[in-house]
Amino acid sequence: MSADDGAGRGLSRRRLLGAAGLGALAAGTAGAGAGYAMADTSPPPVVVDPDALPIRFEGVHQAGIVTPSQDRLYFVALDLTTEDRNSLIALLKQWTVAARQMTQGNDVGEMGAVGGSPYSPPEDTGEALGLPPSGLTITIGFGRGMFVDDKGKARFGLDGLLPDRLTDMPSFSGDRLDDALSGGDIAIQACANDPQVAVHAVRNLVRIAFGRASVRYSQMGFGRTSSTSSAQVTARNLFGFKDGTNNIKVEEKKAVDDFVWVHQEDGPAWLVGGSYLVTRKIDMRIETWDRESLTGQQAIMGRTKGSGGPMSGGDEFAAIDFDATNEDGEPAIDLKSHVRLAHPDFNNGAKLLRRGYNFVDGSNGLGQLSAGLFFISYQRDPAQFVQIQRSLAGLNNDLLNEYIVHVGSGLFACPPGVGPTGYWGEKLFA
Amino acid sequence: MSADDGAGRGLSRRRLLGAAGLGALAAGTAGAGAGYAMADTSPPPVVVDPDALPIRFEGVHQAGIVTPSQDRLYFVALDLTTEDRNSLIALLKQWTVAARQMTQGNDVGEMGAVGGSPYSPPEDTGEALGLPPSGLTITIGFGRGMFVDDKGKARFGLDGLLPDRLTDMPSFSGDRLDDALSGGDIAIQACANDPQVAVHAVRNLVRIAFGRASVRYSQMGFGRTSSTSSAQVTARNLFGFKDGTNNIKVEEKKAVDDFVWVHQEDGPAWLVGGSYLVTRKIDMRIETWDRESLTGQQAIMGRTKGSGGPMSGGDEFAAIDFDATNEDGEPAIDLKSHVRLAHPDFNNGAKLLRRGYNFVDGSNGLGQLSAGLFFISYQRDPAQFVQIQRSLAGLNNDLLNEYIVHVGSGLFACPPGVGPTGYWGEKLFA
Repeated sequence: MSADDGAGRGLSRRRLLGAAGLGALAAGTAGAGAGYAMADTSPPPVVVDPDALPIRFEGVHQAGIVTPSQDRLYFVALDLTTEDRNSLIALLKQWTVAARQMTQGNDVGEMGAVGGSPYSPPEDTGEALGLPPSGLTITIGFGRGMFVDDKGKARFGLDGLLPDRLTDMPSFSGDRLDDALSGGDIAIQACANDPQVAVHAVRNLVRIAFGRASVRYSQMGFGRTSSTSSAQVTARNLFGFKDGTNNIKVEEKKAVDDFVWVHQEDGPAWLVGGSYLVTRKIDMRIETWDRESLTGQQAIMGRTKGSGGPMSGGDEFAAIDFDATNEDGEPAIDLKSHVRLAHPDFNNGAKLLRRGYNFVDGSNGLGQLSAGLFFISYQRDPAQFVQIQRSLAGLNNDLLNEYIVHVGSGLFACPPGVGPTGYWGEKLFA
Repeated sequence: MSADDGAGRGLSRRRLLGAAGLGALAAGTAGAGAGYAMADTSPPPVVVDPDALPIRFEGVHQAGIVTPSQDRLYFVALDLTTEDRNSLIALLKQWTVAARQMTQGNDVGEMGAVGGSPYSPPEDTGEALGLPPSGLTITIGFGRGMFVDDKGKARFGLDGLLPDRLTDMPSFSGDRLDDALSGGDIAIQACANDPQVAVHAVRNLVRIAFGRASVRYSQMGFGRTSSTSSAQVTARNLFGFKDGTNNIKVEEKKAVDDFVWVHQEDGPAWLVGGSYLVTRKIDMRIETWDRESLTGQQAIMGRTKGSGGPMSGGDEFAAIDFDATNEDGEPAIDLKSHVRLAHPDFNNGAKLLRRGYNFVDGSNGLGQLSAGLFFISYQRDPAQFVQIQRSLAGLNNDLLNEYIVHVGSGLFACPPGVGPTGYWGEKLFA
């Protein structure tokens, strides 16, 4: 019995997509959509779908941080089940090879998804066969638990390499963190414009890790909150408001350099060019929010629901006037509004590159939507996040806290990017 | 304080999208994607994205059944908490108005998402503001529980209107059904090419139902298994195999008429032009499957993993030769393979219109992917599904059963479509 089609060779993503080039790829996409106009049998126009293109894997920094946000997320946190240094190094090397392949639209492995011996499991699980690269990025972060165990003893010979700033996250007022949805020795963020491509990436990395690392939790997301590029329309969160209007945009090179990347003087050396990743799973009390008046919703946010402009006036990107008053002489921007308490002016200038996604996990046992925001931010120093979250947290602060609850939390140090032959975190083991 | 922007009027989806027409809409889509090529500042080409277009709501049949499958699903099952006939009629009328609005890319309500009194909750929850119709369809089905209570007593005065065929689904060998993921008095299937649009639709319908119906369970899905149009490339399930090669295609008018729509002679009269909807939440044992050899995977499915051609030879759409033998003299198509046991030739000719979606709900407590297939099929008679499922179910039958488990089940009668002024299920109350 041959491996495939009687021709004895695998059918790889590269072969499928490479045969006819990008024009044909895009035409295929348009052709599928053309099914809606079923009476129209004219050939679809040949256009390149930018959402289908690959993102470069190699670079000074990892992709997936200042890459303009893709539409979909699959995030996973893993715990290392091995204690062997060489086993960890081998895992990181194998993961890097696989990530390099998948982000460029290829199968995992050397022989194509269904190549190799038919008596072995396929090297690639196959569900992305025929799908384009879809803007896939795969970004890795290392948790404190990879460096030290619960007693503070070094793991994997990584003595002295734990960044001072990779501490346990402080607790914040109102936190209701679930340990099973928090932490992790390693985080992997897969973003793509097709959820099947993101799922395929995480699944294959998890499979490669079998016997060395196991999944702690994972999270699907959609909706591209917060917008990270000035070329993107600001997306809306599940409260119906635009989210990320004042986010750092990846085109703002100085802000990115000042607030996102770890510098030489920050240390440690292995992390220079990297960034700290903070995740927060934030449940939204959707049904309660939906019964709040428009006036109330806008006062809580400090912005209008329609355009997203500040309550002090102007369009979405207008400067916020925190001193403006309304016709009753009250502050136009409520003193406890989300936009005010999160603003750099009230946080010693701290800014984050937010890169979160909406999620719907189905329904909870009370018949309510189990939905919210999987908050992701990248920053040069976790203290930036801590500053802002301290400002927001607690029922005496951000008015929004009546409608949200933080149930998961993570902090990871993301190493710099790799070259054509390097591997994730290689400087840790040099 | 004004409702929005100081101009005292709402910003609706219609206004946002209608202003510049479809060309601008599509250009906006391409413009967002053009962020990837950040050095290129030339204006994006103006093309119509077929995935963004609206699907007609009115018709002889409900949309969302023979509509070529969209990319994303949000499905919800609700239980009626009212016992009042007029309250149910009002709910169905309000839902129909809202579905008509949302499928055409408009806000729910008469005043735009943020219109109306600022001291009332917004009529529309707002998270789809600025998004195109995205091929949204909303399809309703009625469960047995809407017609009779647990003791068989009629509800809502619907005496004599319960279809004989809307029975409790028989149990199948190997079923491990969770009552909390099964049944429901009413089902709503929202499909769209943008998950935010599908989520928005269900959320607003659930909100409208407050006090009259509550959510029993809900399910997100992606990946368009099974393919329902000959214009679509066959999608892959999470076992990595093409799914739906031999599915009824919506272009096959005779098969659709024979196997999907309820006819006059089938009765009852109110259901003519409608269809029966079967749902099955099927968990996949992903990690176990991924350790199965390619030979094993292909034998179980009866098809090759690459092209999806039958193991008896030929390409994806080649006729299956169940009598073919391999070089060892054994049947090329295993007698217990999925493709054989599900085939019409071994099921008295029974066929279904499958319209399922892949799902990933995150991870389970064992660190495994909580993933699988949310199976959806439409058929003229539930007996078609029962015939095939009886053929498949149990460890002595379909080899695939070692890797899947059915955890949820639903059966609903979907009324015919509505005209420009009608409402879902109106003939039940005539």
